[in-house]
Amino acid sequence: MATFGVAVIGAGRIGALHLRNLCAIPGVRVVVVADAEREAAERGKALANAERATDDVEDAICHPAVDAVVIATPTPTHARLITLAAEAGKAIWCEKPVALDLGEAERAAAVVESKRLPAQVGFMRRFDPGYAAAKDKIASGALGRVEAFRALSRDTYPPPPSFIAHSGGIFLDMAIHDFDLARYLVGEVAEVYAWGAVLIDERFAQAGDADTACALLRFESGALGVVETARRSAWGYDIRTEVAGAQGKLVIEADQKTPLRFSRRFGFEGDHYESFADRFEAAYRLQFEAFFEALRRGYSPSPGLRDAIETLRLAVAATRSWREGRPVAVREVKSNA
Amino acid sequence: MATFGVAVIGAGRIGALHLRNLCAIPGVRVVVVADAEREAAERGKALANAERATDDVEDAICHPAVDAVVIATPTPTHARLITLAAEAGKAIWCEKPVALDLGEAERAAAVVESKRLPAQVGFMRRFDPGYAAAKDKIASGALGRVEAFRALSRDTYPPPPSFIAHSGGIFLDMAIHDFDLARYLVGEVAEVYAWGAVLIDERFAQAGDADTACALLRFESGALGVVETARRSAWGYDIRTEVAGAQGKLVIEADQKTPLRFSRRFGFEGDHYESFADRFEAAYRLQFEAFFEALRRGYSPSPGLRDAIETLRLAVAATRSWREGRPVAVREVKSNA
Amino acid sequence: MATFGVAVIGAGRIGALHLRNLCAIPGVRVVVVADAEREAAERGKALANAERATDDVEDAICHPAVDAVVIATPTPTHARLITLAAEAGKAIWCEKPVALDLGEAERAAAVVESKRLPAQVGFMRRFDPGYAAAKDKIASGALGRVEAFRALSRDTYPPPPSFIAHSGGIFLDMAIHDFDLARYLVGEVAEVYAWGAVLIDERFAQAGDADTACALLRFESGALGVVETARRSAWGYDIRTEVAGAQGKLVIEADQKTPLRFSRRFGFEGDHYESFADRFEAAYRLQFEAFFEALRRGYSPSPGLRDAIETLRLAVAATRSWREGRPVAVREVKSNA
Amino acid sequence: MATFGVAVIGAGRIGALHLRNLCAIPGVRVVVVADAEREAAERGKALANAERATDDVEDAICHPAVDAVVIATPTPTHARLITLAAEAGKAIWCEKPVALDLGEAERAAAVVESKRLPAQVGFMRRFDPGYAAAKDKIASGALGRVEAFRALSRDTYPPPPSFIAHSGGIFLDMAIHDFDLARYLVGEVAEVYAWGAVLIDERFAQAGDADTACALLRFESGALGVVETARRSAWGYDIRTEVAGAQGKLVIEADQKTPLRFSRRFGFEGDHYESFADRFEAAYRLQFEAFFEALRRGYSPSPGLRDAIETLRLAVAATRSWREGRPVAVREVKSNA
Repeated sequence: MATFGVAVIGAGRIGALHLRNLCAIPGVRVVVVADAEREAAERGKALANAERATDDVEDAICHPAVDAVVIATPTPTHARLITLAAEAGKAIWCEKPVALDLGEAERAAAVVESKRLPAQVGFMRRFDPGYAAAKDKIASGALGRVEAFRALSRDTYPPPPSFIAHSGGIFLDMAIHDFDLARYLVGEVAEVYAWGAVLIDERFAQAGDADTACALLRFESGALGVVETARRSAWGYDIRTEVAGAQGKLVIEADQKTPLRFSRRFGFEGDHYESFADRFEAAYRLQFEAFFEALRRGYSPSPGLRDAIETLRLAVAATRSWREGRPVAVREVKSNA
Repeated sequence: MATFGVAVIGAGRIGALHLRNLCAIPGVRVVVVADAEREAAERGKALANAERATDDVEDAICHPAVDAVVIATPTPTHARLITLAAEAGKAIWCEKPVALDLGEAERAAAVVESKRLPAQVGFMRRFDPGYAAAKDKIASGALGRVEAFRALSRDTYPPPPSFIAHSGGIFLDMAIHDFDLARYLVGEVAEVYAWGAVLIDERFAQAGDADTACALLRFESGALGVVETARRSAWGYDIRTEVAGAQGKLVIEADQKTPLRFSRRFGFEGDHYESFADRFEAAYRLQFEAFFEALRRGYSPSPGLRDAIETLRLAVAATRSWREGRPVAVREVKSNA
Repeated sequence: MATFGVAVIGAGRIGALHLRNLCAIPGVRVVVVADAEREAAERGKALANAERATDDVEDAICHPAVDAVVIATPTPTHARLITLAAEAGKAIWCEKPVALDLGEAERAAAVVESKRLPAQVGFMRRFDPGYAAAKDKIASGALGRVEAFRALSRDTYPPPPSFIAHSGGIFLDMAIHDFDLARYLVGEVAEVYAWGAVLIDERFAQAGDADTACALLRFESGALGVVETARRSAWGYDIRTEVAGAQGKLVIEADQKTPLRFSRRFGFEGDHYESFADRFEAAYRLQFEAFFEALRRGYSPSPGLRDAIETLRLAVAATRSWREGRPVAVREVKSNA
Repeated sequence: MATFGVAVIGAGRIGALHLRNLCAIPGVRVVVVADAEREAAERGKALANAERATDDVEDAICHPAVDAVVIATPTPTHARLITLAAEAGKAIWCEKPVALDLGEAERAAAVVESKRLPAQVGFMRRFDPGYAAAKDKIASGALGRVEAFRALSRDTYPPPPSFIAHSGGIFLDMAIHDFDLARYLVGEVAEVYAWGAVLIDERFAQAGDADTACALLRFESGALGVVETARRSAWGYDIRTEVAGAQGKLVIEADQKTPLRFSRRFGFEGDHYESFADRFEAAYRLQFEAFFEALRRGYSPSPGLRDAIETLRLAVAATRSWREGRPVAVREVKSNA
């Protein structure tokens, strides 16, 4: 079995999660960990038993033992790092969203495509056994014509204020996962209408962002959808998705974390997941297994950059709808927007 | 215990359901059943062991042994019958919606109020043990500040074409239940934005109606809401509602009808409710118990005509939003609209 | 529709429940309520809007307007009242168990049978939609050969000490419901082995009874079964039953009472049923509907006295196994035992 | 972080599972894989990226880079391999059951204890998040006095006939997991009564074994328990456990594998786990993490050999009860039995 050498760029919270998962994949070796903060790079190196830690990302990407670059840095750096990795001829795995700006995303994708390099984006929910099984069920025709999509996402903890400013806003940073599921499970969206509100923390308002949002989707097929999202959940990580059709309905919902129920005076209790890390523990691992399996077999990994761009377009359209108070056709959102 | 004499006006499908429930309430006696179709009136009389069947509604309403009038006729007749009953000095129970036109509803309510007569409207979901317990939980403060409302309603069987034409449309006829729950559980709605689609049966399009719809709600409190509804459900009656707040979330959902699970090759099966009649069996009975208990104790039954009017206003606003393709402030909907 | 006149004998807790259910059945009229305590009889009369209250049971049974006698008195009186009703030529409905002594039960049944009178015994669980659907599913062959039966019953509240002394013990009074389900769903039992313990209240020990018990069953078909029962449940009424076969498994379980779930800090809560009265609310009503339907159509109601006798035989065998510390063949338990 | 060198003895189905889990534990390196079948050893070596494959177990155990020996061979070899490993001064992890003969188990344990070596036995269910949380909940006193234990285990696929002959029978090979949970969650068992039956495959009868069994347990505390087990389950791996006390009840049950529900004509479907490998995926990994964590920190791993011996004693008592048709006191089962 060929072994792939990997450079991991970005060793913060999500980078550390990726490092642990990469270590456990047979045939994958983390060669170098890079982070603008040298200490974070060193911690990442120790986590992954890597050869090198560095704060020089170019150096890490170009390391001759590196076959694939895993990008887990803040979003504004994604497009540049994808471009660097593509120019170095490396396979690319990048966290979502691929950029905050469509044009930037398009230009990075163009470089990757011109070099015919494999690239995958971190929409990990697609690899959750529930969502993957839903995709198969829909493809089997079990639902008949799809008529409705329904998604709700609540993060347990709001992000820190420093993150809010550069996040791209609730639709690009958070609802983007639900928009990706909408496209993955139902198909392309023609039109979106969105509302935002600040109900959780005034700092979102100060950043011109919302902490609670909802949107209506009209798919090209004519199906309707609703997406709800919020930046805080007192009861834990709350991610539920439904697809309904003429003949049946799918509900993807992992409500209980521990297989234990406690009954006491006339009632019972169970627990919820605390975070994306425990809810999507398997998906975070499986997305990398799929990526390296694609490299090994020589086919294009998925979801790729074009998927990321279309999902981003939808998120930009939702943001525009919210800001302008009108329904927005997704196609009206161009790369130079 | 005082016994109340009741006239039931309208002995169709829903009227028959009410007749069976009225019969089982101690202290209630169905005196007369009226229906434009004499045969239906006769069947209703037999069902309820009533004294009289008639096709003369005025006669039924004015019958001296009648204390309360239960109105279960098609919606366009409601306001007139409420007015007749009020003029005869009877207590009134009326199916939802109270009218298709706000002005008509207001005028009927004015007559009832001028006579200080008790009146209740058939938003039966409020009496379902799940919704009633949710109301109590919210009132207790367990959710903290309410931030989000989420409702989905799918009817099992689409109505017949003859019904569609006079139904008032999907928002007035069907989503009105969810709008009532929104107001009951969260509070008044300031603004609504709605979309409709025809995905199930082209006859809805021919009637200028939709068979699938969704709406965003912005409550006066700032909370956001989404409502989805559809006229057909292959898997059965599908009614689910959620209220989320800063500290907790309530999900009102009765997914399984029979307490039986069948496990077979690597999977399990259970059943759903088929119809509103079995899902809300208890609620249909409990709403009448509450009505007669209010009459007995001399307080105003609830939900009353003012509730019905505000819920109707919201449904009219949603319809207007859909038709005009713009968000509509609920207050802009006036009675002379 | 013919109307049946009913005498209800015994107007205590369970009698009152039966009175309320009888009132709501079309074509049934409670004529007379009898109870050794005159006041209880009067309360029952008021509940059911009956003509008469009496402390003279013979008088009630023989009342010319009485077609059927409903017996809800303490168990030691059942056989005598069945016999009286049979001698008066009345249809009989009797609470379980039909007697504490097999011989007594046999003699009463002989009188009923000699008069060819319809008789039904109050194993209400058979009428619960879950158990009834399980019966149908098994009959359809969906499980293949049945291999295992599993039952657990916990009452919420222990009975008062006065009741314990005359109850017949935990197997005859309580596990008898599970034994009836075993016979109903799987078939006749060949052998039983039982243990009892006093873990809840020492007064059970003083009465020579147990408050917690378990038993192994070996069915004539070769299938195995386990039954567990206890006299107190801190978390509410806990009744669950399973039947497993070569091809599938059925679980009859109604764990949650109200269709509402409350989510709070990393967990969720729901409620349990408090008592048999709310868990089996429908079954208590449906058993009477089935009884009068059988009378109306002229077929034998079920479960009848022979069912009650075979279930009693199994309960007596379990008691004997516990007392003698050995497996007991059910057939060894004779009527003169 | 110190790295532990491991020899894995036995590279069959369960051995391969352990190899995959061992590979993913930071600080653990599989040095050598031994199996009587050379090819299996080679496959295991490849799986774990080990240095050596061998059919010489002594050689593997004594390899100087080996700190710990993981034993996953057929049960009859366990005690000998434990003894060899102990004599070589290695830490020991051994699959359950530790032996089929109590005396043999005692002698092996004596050698381990004389050398003060750490040893852990593969009762992996204790490491499942559900069972671990149940243990904590019971320890917290949330149940009050424990009164009842209830366990059911069904394997999906019956073992091959070759396995049956040397398995030790259904109580030693299969119910032993439930007996271990009984001791883990509730405490020591004083008395057992067991029945077996052959309902699935006649070959169990030919081997003097049962394929379906049930047992009553009486704990030293006075609590009662029931255990049911069967060698085949058409619907998948079926493992459920309950502990009930004076104040509450725990149900450990992971009924659904994939977080997806499919609703179709008036019903819904979900999936069950197929096997112990998917149901206890986390537990199989966590037990090794706990073992090496204990080695690292220098405390005794658990469950150890004494736990294994007491659980074995209970399984032997159950077997004896079944064969002799009488209740058996667990203490009557001596090592020379």
